[in-house]
Amino acid sequence: MKYLWLSLVILLAPGLALADPLPSWRAGASKTAIVEFVEAVTEIGGADYRTPAERIAVFDNDGTLWSEQPAYFQLLFAVDRVAEMAKADPSMAKSPALKAAAAGDFPALLATGTKGLLEVVSASHSGIDVAGYQAKVARWLKETRHKKAGRRYDEMIYQPMLELLSYLRDSGFKTYIVSGGGIHFMRVFVEEAYGIPPEQVIGSTGEASYKVVDGMPTVMKEPGLAFLDDGPGKPIAIDRVIGRRPILAGGNSDGDLHMIQWSTAGEGRRLGLLVHHTDAEREWAYDRKSHIGKLDKALDMANSSSNWSVIDMKTEWRVVFPYDLAE
Amino acid sequence: MKYLWLSLVILLAPGLALADPLPSWRAGASKTAIVEFVEAVTEIGGADYRTPAERIAVFDNDGTLWSEQPAYFQLLFAVDRVAEMAKADPSMAKSPALKAAAAGDFPALLATGTKGLLEVVSASHSGIDVAGYQAKVARWLKETRHKKAGRRYDEMIYQPMLELLSYLRDSGFKTYIVSGGGIHFMRVFVEEAYGIPPEQVIGSTGEASYKVVDGMPTVMKEPGLAFLDDGPGKPIAIDRVIGRRPILAGGNSDGDLHMIQWSTAGEGRRLGLLVHHTDAEREWAYDRKSHIGKLDKALDMANSSSNWSVIDMKTEWRVVFPYDLAE
Repeated sequence: MKYLWLSLVILLAPGLALADPLPSWRAGASKTAIVEFVEAVTEIGGADYRTPAERIAVFDNDGTLWSEQPAYFQLLFAVDRVAEMAKADPSMAKSPALKAAAAGDFPALLATGTKGLLEVVSASHSGIDVAGYQAKVARWLKETRHKKAGRRYDEMIYQPMLELLSYLRDSGFKTYIVSGGGIHFMRVFVEEAYGIPPEQVIGSTGEASYKVVDGMPTVMKEPGLAFLDDGPGKPIAIDRVIGRRPILAGGNSDGDLHMIQWSTAGEGRRLGLLVHHTDAEREWAYDRKSHIGKLDKALDMANSSSNWSVIDMKTEWRVVFPYDLAE
Repeated sequence: MKYLWLSLVILLAPGLALADPLPSWRAGASKTAIVEFVEAVTEIGGADYRTPAERIAVFDNDGTLWSEQPAYFQLLFAVDRVAEMAKADPSMAKSPALKAAAAGDFPALLATGTKGLLEVVSASHSGIDVAGYQAKVARWLKETRHKKAGRRYDEMIYQPMLELLSYLRDSGFKTYIVSGGGIHFMRVFVEEAYGIPPEQVIGSTGEASYKVVDGMPTVMKEPGLAFLDDGPGKPIAIDRVIGRRPILAGGNSDGDLHMIQWSTAGEGRRLGLLVHHTDAEREWAYDRKSHIGKLDKALDMANSSSNWSVIDMKTEWRVVFPYDLAE
C-alpha cells in the first residue's frame, strides 16, 4: 500500500502545483512574463531552449536591487568618509565640494554639480589599498542607518528581486550585477545580500596602481575614474567581462537603457525588466523628473518593446524589503 | 564472491595508486610542487585547506599555454589582416608600419618599433563589430598554418598545461586566463582549446562603442588601446574582474612577474609557476635576451622565492604539443 502511494505521487508529481518561487510577487504581467520566460528557455527540446552557458542574467544595482533615495548610498558613504578624513586632516577640504562634504552640507555639495560629486568620490575612494578601503565600507554599512527607514543600507534590498535572483539561479542562470556603482564598494555586501560572488560584479572602476608596500604586493586605489559603467558603458563592460550577450537584463533608469536594449535584441527569446518606483508609501515614487534614477526614455522604450516588462512596484510587489516579511 | 571482491576494492581504494592526473609531466620538482600544493589546499581539515571559492588559478596565455615564436600569434593575425584590408583598399596603408604590414615585410615592420606595432594592431582590430571580428579570427585560425611547425596555431598548445588545467578544475579550481593578448581574439579559441569559458578570459582591451547599426544594437571595436593587461596591469585587472587574490599563478615572462608576485604573497599556501623555454628541438629556447617573452627579472625572483617553481620544458615535459601524443 505504501508503495502504491509512492508510485501515485511520482506519477502525479508533474501535475501538482509546485511551491511558488516568487511568493512576494502578486499575479500580474511581470510575474507572468518572468515565469513564462524561464520555463521557455529551460524546457529541453523546446523552441526557446538555452544551454546553461547561455543563461546570463544581468541586473543594475541602485534602484533595481536596493533603494537609491535620497541619493545613491555609495555617495552617502563618500560624504561621510570625506568628513572623517577632514576631521583627521582639515587641510584636505580644499575645494567647495570637499568643504561641503566635510560639513555634511548636501545642498551645498549638490550645487557643485557633477564635477564636485566626482571630486568627493575620488578623494574618498583613493590613497588606500583595496582591502583597507573595503574594511572602511564594511564598518560604515554596519554602523550607519538610513535616515528615513532607520535601517542598515544593506537591509534596504528588494525581497521580490532576491526571489527572482534565486529563481534564476535555481533555473541554471548565472546572475551578474552591472552597476554604475564601484566594484570595490559593492563587493563588500553583495555576496551576503544577493548571493552574487565578487567575480559576477561589474561596475565603475577608479584608477589603480600596483605597489609593494612594506614588502606586501598591493593593489592601491588611485584618484580618477578609469571606467564609468553607465548608459552605453554597460553593454561595453558586459562584452569585456562576460563575453556573451545576456538573455535577461533588469534595470530601473535611463542608465540601464542600452544594457536592456542590447540584451533583448539578439536572436531567440529574451526578457527586459524595468523596476518602476511607484510606491511613495512603502518605498519612493519617482521616474521621468527624478535627479536620481531618472526613468524617461527607457520607459517609452519599454512601452513599445514586446519583450520588456515594466514592474509596477506598488501593485506587483506584495512586500518591498525583507524586514517587511517579519512584521 | 563477486560482492566480496567489490567490498575489497571499495575498502582498499584510497590506498590504490590513482591514475596520474599529469601523465605528460616527468617526475621532478615542478610536478611535485603542483601535486603537493593541490593536495594541501583541497585536504578538508588540513592546515592549508581552501574553500572552492578561494581556489582561483590564473595563467598567462602566450608562451604559457601556447607558443609565441617567432612572434605573438595575434600579431601575425594583425599583419595578415592589414594585408587583406590593404588589398581591398590600398589607400589604408598610409604609414611606414601599415605599408610594411601590408607587404608582409616583418623586418621593416619591427623597425617601426612599439608605436608601429600598436598602429598595426589598432588598424586591424577596429572599425568592425565584435562578432564580425571574431568570425575573421576564426577563419584565419582555420586557414593559416605556422611556418615552422606546419600546424594550426590553436594546435600549438601545451599538452602538459592542458593536463594541469584539467587537474585544477577537477580539484575545484576556477581557471582563468590573464593575458596581454586581446579578449576578443582569445575567446574565439580558448573554450575549445583549454576548456576556459569566455567569462574567465581577462586580457587587453581596445576602445569600444555602443551603436545601433541597421536596427541591431551592437558593440563596435574602435581604434586605440583601452587597457594593456601586462606587467602591473595584470594584478590590477584580476582585482577588477575577479575581486580575489588568486592562490596559483602561472606565466613565462617578465610581463607575468607582478601577477605571480601578487598571487603568491598573500596569507596561506600559494604557488607560482614559470614555464622556462629550454627546448630548442621540440619548441624554442629563449629567456633573458629574447624580444618575445623576455624572462629575466622573473627568473631571478623565482630562484629566490620558496613558493615559485620553474618548469624546465626540456626535462620536465614528456611531450610538448597534443599532436606529439599521436605520433
